[in-house]
Amino acid sequence: MVDPVEVQDILTQVGSLLDAGETSEAIQILQDLHPADSSEILYDLSSEYQSILLRQMEDEQAADMLEEMDEEEMAEVVQNLSVGELADILDEMEPDMAADLLGEFTEEQTAALLEEMEEADDVAPLLAYPEDTAGGIMNTPRHMLRRQMTAAQAMSFLREHYADEHDLYYLYVLDRHRRLVGIVSLRALVLALPDQTLDEIMDRDVLTVRAEADQEEVARLLARYNLLALPVVDEEDHLLGLVSVDDVVDVLEEEATEDIYRLAQVSGDAEIFSPIHRSVGNRLPWLVVNMGTAFLASSVVALFEGTIAQAALLAAFMPIVAGQGGNAGTQTMTIMIRSLALGELELRDTWRALLHEIIVGLIHGLVIGLCVGLIAWFWKGNAVLGMVIGAAMLGNLLVAAFAGVLIPMLLRWLNIDPALASGVFVTTATDVLGFGLFLGLASYYIAWLV
Amino acid sequence: MVDPVEVQDILTQVGSLLDAGETSEAIQILQDLHPADSSEILYDLSSEYQSILLRQMEDEQAADMLEEMDEEEMAEVVQNLSVGELADILDEMEPDMAADLLGEFTEEQTAALLEEMEEADDVAPLLAYPEDTAGGIMNTPRHMLRRQMTAAQAMSFLREHYADEHDLYYLYVLDRHRRLVGIVSLRALVLALPDQTLDEIMDRDVLTVRAEADQEEVARLLARYNLLALPVVDEEDHLLGLVSVDDVVDVLEEEATEDIYRLAQVSGDAEIFSPIHRSVGNRLPWLVVNMGTAFLASSVVALFEGTIAQAALLAAFMPIVAGQGGNAGTQTMTIMIRSLALGELELRDTWRALLHEIIVGLIHGLVIGLCVGLIAWFWKGNAVLGMVIGAAMLGNLLVAAFAGVLIPMLLRWLNIDPALASGVFVTTATDVLGFGLFLGLASYYIAWLV
Repeated sequence: MVDPVEVQDILTQVGSLLDAGETSEAIQILQDLHPADSSEILYDLSSEYQSILLRQMEDEQAADMLEEMDEEEMAEVVQNLSVGELADILDEMEPDMAADLLGEFTEEQTAALLEEMEEADDVAPLLAYPEDTAGGIMNTPRHMLRRQMTAAQAMSFLREHYADEHDLYYLYVLDRHRRLVGIVSLRALVLALPDQTLDEIMDRDVLTVRAEADQEEVARLLARYNLLALPVVDEEDHLLGLVSVDDVVDVLEEEATEDIYRLAQVSGDAEIFSPIHRSVGNRLPWLVVNMGTAFLASSVVALFEGTIAQAALLAAFMPIVAGQGGNAGTQTMTIMIRSLALGELELRDTWRALLHEIIVGLIHGLVIGLCVGLIAWFWKGNAVLGMVIGAAMLGNLLVAAFAGVLIPMLLRWLNIDPALASGVFVTTATDVLGFGLFLGLASYYIAWLV
Repeated sequence: MVDPVEVQDILTQVGSLLDAGETSEAIQILQDLHPADSSEILYDLSSEYQSILLRQMEDEQAADMLEEMDEEEMAEVVQNLSVGELADILDEMEPDMAADLLGEFTEEQTAALLEEMEEADDVAPLLAYPEDTAGGIMNTPRHMLRRQMTAAQAMSFLREHYADEHDLYYLYVLDRHRRLVGIVSLRALVLALPDQTLDEIMDRDVLTVRAEADQEEVARLLARYNLLALPVVDEEDHLLGLVSVDDVVDVLEEEATEDIYRLAQVSGDAEIFSPIHRSVGNRLPWLVVNMGTAFLASSVVALFEGTIAQAALLAAFMPIVAGQGGNAGTQTMTIMIRSLALGELELRDTWRALLHEIIVGLIHGLVIGLCVGLIAWFWKGNAVLGMVIGAAMLGNLLVAAFAGVLIPMLLRWLNIDPALASGVFVTTATDVLGFGLFLGLASYYIAWLV
């Protein structure tokens, strides 16, 4: 493990070596680091130095470093390489990562690169699958064996053909139609007697997924059943590929980030140092949507302009009604959305969840309504004001409970990601109904408020 | 994989069998499922049936099912078992899970259980570590070998002593002082020639962590370097335990959930169907904190009661100013907090991030300010109103940028989790300064607004 400060130091050191033209020393330093660290340094160098390094180092080292980056970063780093240079590096990459990188180029560029590659057959089939499906994160399987082999035979077969395979977790046993019939974990292979056949030690009850399965679902299956790899098959159980646990850890992180950003109304793969135009593109559309809903709330308030003109003190309490309703609605909504994402909650739980949240909302409403009502009474010396705002608060916290439960469920039912849009609707509901309730009650009791 | 509907069906079936007194049939059904599924069914049964099943099934089956639950669930399910019955099950559990379960009991109960257990020596040392540290999620290592062994000897040694070990990913090679000198992956063992020694094939450059390391940090190390297990050592490199990849997947999910809930101002391990008192306990305190800050915003508005009395239409625009500021601040803050959590952002990036966000805020402010200003002008037919609200909007989006960057960074610098409290401060800043700016400007130009 190299800590961030060290990365900075090594970056400076590598930069000076490159300035002095000592490229092979710079390559040696990168070679001594874990690719997860050296790839960060490579990414932080100028594009000129990136090209020099990638051209002069071994293709395998270059491939290892690229594999630690995401697609956009890879594409940026290799932009100045020729088709021939890049094809050599692609040949050394894991097929799923090579396919991700190829996905960043135009169709013509991809065709030219595949033409030059020697391992194109492993990579080309993967290009057909969308990035966020099982097909998009799987690798083409190499270590496939027949059930008649003994453990000892399997091991010498592996030594001969698969010494370079990194992701070797299970052996996949196929029949003569290339259908998957069982898997053997390395653990089972190591613990088997040398003359036991794979047929005897394999696990026949194999969990599989289809290539079009969502990557998040695949990740949760691996996590739930503590698997190191999951076979991807077609309708006839032909083995298409393997998703392995290290891909899945990244998927879970990505999906959590996506949910967090969607809840905060930020689109896409936002990063704090994204180019300005991308930051604006990820966020401004949501601000515009919110502006629209804010005008909705605003026109509700405008309905009561006459009331506010008579009792301007009402304006001071508007932020409290809207704020508490929005916060309570967001709490309920967030718990609903996360529980849906983790598979702990289903559509059929809607009424049970609603009842639960109504009770919670009632308790919150009584406590908060009483507090705010008393404070308003003593602050402005007007008991009716206290009653009005207390009642509005109770009402708005019940609105928050309904909106917080029903809006995510409705979106889930419509097959829209609840994280994507619930926030807008929930706060619109609490703002519009909260202001309406508060100012409506105030208009009714206006004689006691002025 | 059993889908949720099937789980319901099997639950009904198991329930009927138990009603009919056919316990061994019920146990057989559970036995045929993956423990990840059968544990859900066990948890959903009445506590009477839970005890009957746990008493009559094999201790190993009971242990496998308990291991799929979290601590509270385990403790609930075993509550009616005697010390002797529970000790037998604990003996069959993975030591880290057994330690988690023991952590739910009083000191006297734990001592009594350890007294009865046969494998107490594996579990007792783990009780010393807090749950959310490397020590709290590690297991005591069993498969430790000496470097002079050959690959063939190591395999027969494993067959003899470790046939029951589930988490067998690496072999740990110790010197005679029990210090860790290298690790051998199962992959390397399988690919080695039978007479190669472990010394020849082991990886000496071993990444290790200390027992007191935070579990999130450990999870990120495993993910970053694509490891299947990580050794936990003391100051003198003595091997204390192992954290394995399946524990880590759970940790990443837990930490993401915690961050999401903290951002939405929900405390602790909230679940949608938590008992009401716990739901209220997790959320009401935050609503009360927000009530306090809302009164702060409220008193700023109260300062301008005179202005609002003269021009009540101002009240209608208050939700827009506060809403947009709050949303933009939340966007910036959320990206900052997630980037900090993922290690993509450090304290020393503060000024760079601030500059980035000021530029984004300026662009957002100009676009949104212009839109809202123009809408206000045409809606109310007052150009000065449009100018005032447009300028206030621009100002508040800049406030949002400052607050969204500086508040999370300040909390990080104070070693407080930024996810925990940033939201309250950011929206307080945008509310208070947003209302102040808008109503302040309006007071200044009041002659043109009435």
